[in-house]
Amino acid sequence: MTDTEPADPWGITTLEIFERLDRTLEGTADRAVATVVGVDGSAYRRPGAKMLLGDDGSTYGGITAGCLEGPLQNVGRDVIADGSPTVVTFDLTADDDGWGLGLGCEGIVDVLVEPADGSWRDPVDAFTTGEARSLVTVIDGSDSIPVGARAIVPRAGAAIDPDDRPSVPPAVLESVLDDARDLAGDGRWERRTVDTEDGSVELFIDGIEPATKLLVFGGQPDVRPVTRLAREVGFEVTVATARGGQADESSFPRADRVLATHPSEIDELVDDRTSVVIMSHNFLDDRLALESLLETSAPFIGLMGPRERFQRLRGELEEDGVTLFEADRERIASPVGLDLGGGEPIEIAMSVVSEVLAVSNGRGGGRLRDREGRIHDRSPSESESEPESEAKSESEPESGARSD
Amino acid sequence: MTDTEPADPWGITTLEIFERLDRTLEGTADRAVATVVGVDGSAYRRPGAKMLLGDDGSTYGGITAGCLEGPLQNVGRDVIADGSPTVVTFDLTADDDGWGLGLGCEGIVDVLVEPADGSWRDPVDAFTTGEARSLVTVIDGSDSIPVGARAIVPRAGAAIDPDDRPSVPPAVLESVLDDARDLAGDGRWERRTVDTEDGSVELFIDGIEPATKLLVFGGQPDVRPVTRLAREVGFEVTVATARGGQADESSFPRADRVLATHPSEIDELVDDRTSVVIMSHNFLDDRLALESLLETSAPFIGLMGPRERFQRLRGELEEDGVTLFEADRERIASPVGLDLGGGEPIEIAMSVVSEVLAVSNGRGGGRLRDREGRIHDRSPSESESEPESEAKSESEPESGARSD
Repeated sequence: MTDTEPADPWGITTLEIFERLDRTLEGTADRAVATVVGVDGSAYRRPGAKMLLGDDGSTYGGITAGCLEGPLQNVGRDVIADGSPTVVTFDLTADDDGWGLGLGCEGIVDVLVEPADGSWRDPVDAFTTGEARSLVTVIDGSDSIPVGARAIVPRAGAAIDPDDRPSVPPAVLESVLDDARDLAGDGRWERRTVDTEDGSVELFIDGIEPATKLLVFGGQPDVRPVTRLAREVGFEVTVATARGGQADESSFPRADRVLATHPSEIDELVDDRTSVVIMSHNFLDDRLALESLLETSAPFIGLMGPRERFQRLRGELEEDGVTLFEADRERIASPVGLDLGGGEPIEIAMSVVSEVLAVSNGRGGGRLRDREGRIHDRSPSESESEPESEAKSESEPESGARSD
Repeated sequence: MTDTEPADPWGITTLEIFERLDRTLEGTADRAVATVVGVDGSAYRRPGAKMLLGDDGSTYGGITAGCLEGPLQNVGRDVIADGSPTVVTFDLTADDDGWGLGLGCEGIVDVLVEPADGSWRDPVDAFTTGEARSLVTVIDGSDSIPVGARAIVPRAGAAIDPDDRPSVPPAVLESVLDDARDLAGDGRWERRTVDTEDGSVELFIDGIEPATKLLVFGGQPDVRPVTRLAREVGFEVTVATARGGQADESSFPRADRVLATHPSEIDELVDDRTSVVIMSHNFLDDRLALESLLETSAPFIGLMGPRERFQRLRGELEEDGVTLFEADRERIASPVGLDLGGGEPIEIAMSVVSEVLAVSNGRGGGRLRDREGRIHDRSPSESESEPESEAKSESEPESGARSD
């Protein structure tokens, strides 16, 4: 994949940011990574949101609605020049200052700006392969522990020391390690203060959510708009066609992979982060694919076509002794899609992709105005009673869901 | 606008088909228009769905999931060569014949294939300007009334005789005129048989729905992904910025129009087919825009931002003596968007555009699998008791909603 300019650099997805970061680490371009690490008041993006800053003034991704991207370019240049991570705070509450002028960018935003150095190698690889990681990064240091010191925490096993960056001392990491493991891979964050002999340090725990994958089973032209929209909203997309000779990359130019499969072997392409949409338009192939997928941990299995078709298919499976358990009925969506109306191919594609997106974010796709409560999820530690762990009682954790 | 090749000719929207038809009528390319005029059994698209066929074998738009596009190319070439409209019937119920082989394309589909001639001039202009039209076209003729004879029926006033095409005789048109007026502009269809002295003729009434328009009020980068997705799913998109100097076409390359407006004059850009999304991020500008829009017949007014912000805005309006009526509370969506989760700019854009699409199709979002009844709407004549008009009692009308 080449490092071509995207049509809308501000609006690129997290998947595209990590792809670009991957190429940055392999190449010669100097870039900085900016991550929102704190928000007070109304803000466009939540903590964990990222953008890239080039030493040529280029930016990829947007962490505010256009308010801070300019000032951040200058911070990025300084960070690239001297190689030191830094945290900057933008106060947008005063409407008459330079940042907020007439733009309605409200709230206070803390942003960690750091070089795209070797400490990103493992997290980028983990993002790509779907492995869980938390980044634990010092955002307010002490005399002996600098801002930018980092530990990379998998869900199980020992923390990984980053290249090109001081480690978080074991004594400090110890007090947040369990929480960092819990957050690994799930897209939530926490901010924690830990006391040391040198004074307190503040940590940002960034539970980076790996690329979400969509597998589309089918080979007809109506797969194309689904593939295009899914890639556009940030899914890594594989198209699997049922007929050996038809795995034609040029038919599905926006897919990351196109391959041929026997429908009864489609389970080999699926893991617990892979949503699947079955749309081969062939009843037998669809049935074989569904039967194969029931053996997997795919969290979402959408089936194109009318309700009656699925009932017939389900009846045939049951005659063959295949039972749909409650968990299967929960993850199977048929007819696939949100209720958007419209019968054009692109409207059907939007119906399908918006449902996959909603379900992968744990939502139901109804109208926000009719939903009770806040738009943004609370993290478990906000919405449930506080666990009485020692680590938590000695600090005041701030935390939340990132991606919503 | 130039006649460049779309990335996915099969998946282009109705708006793009009409834009291409407009250029065909002005240019030298010879093309045919194919319209689904009947469906029996399961089919991918509903009656009224259209595609264009070039004499060079090119096709734009898809009326089946890839089953008939090949055979239709040959029909299109013949129609272009001899200039005569024709109706072809594809029976896809036999799974072992050439069309249906392994593709699961089921059902019987009737397709009207006709030259892109002068009879399309008025309907294309009406589509573009948002005027209501029904096309009444003979799909099964008599000795004196050929297939393709046509009348163009506005919602009020006299029927328009088409260029380049025989008219539907007044005595025949008379018996369907009221229904054609009712259907004009609303995207539904009817198929009617009318007895004449020469034997019966069959008519397809195509209530062409004009381009749906989206007006986005705002000028920040987050307008871009909304504009891009909205255009992609078939809206005609205008971006209106609040600040005089910022109406910059290059900032919003996918918009059809970019213009500067004073927020309190935004009502001048809106008609009863224009959905509006307010997302300037400026509280005062948003309030002025909303106040102005309350004076219009805009069917959908979405407001970006948290619930509390809208409540404050509404409070200020009420202090100024502006009351929100029940109909206003119904058409205002705040927070705008479907509940898809996800906080990335493109995810927010998909949430917004999918809600605009759902509401413009009379739907509420939510998951199709949880919806009672059929995916496709029934037309009033299917779901309500049949009106006892003389015209209807002498024929067996078939009808339905097109775009879903």
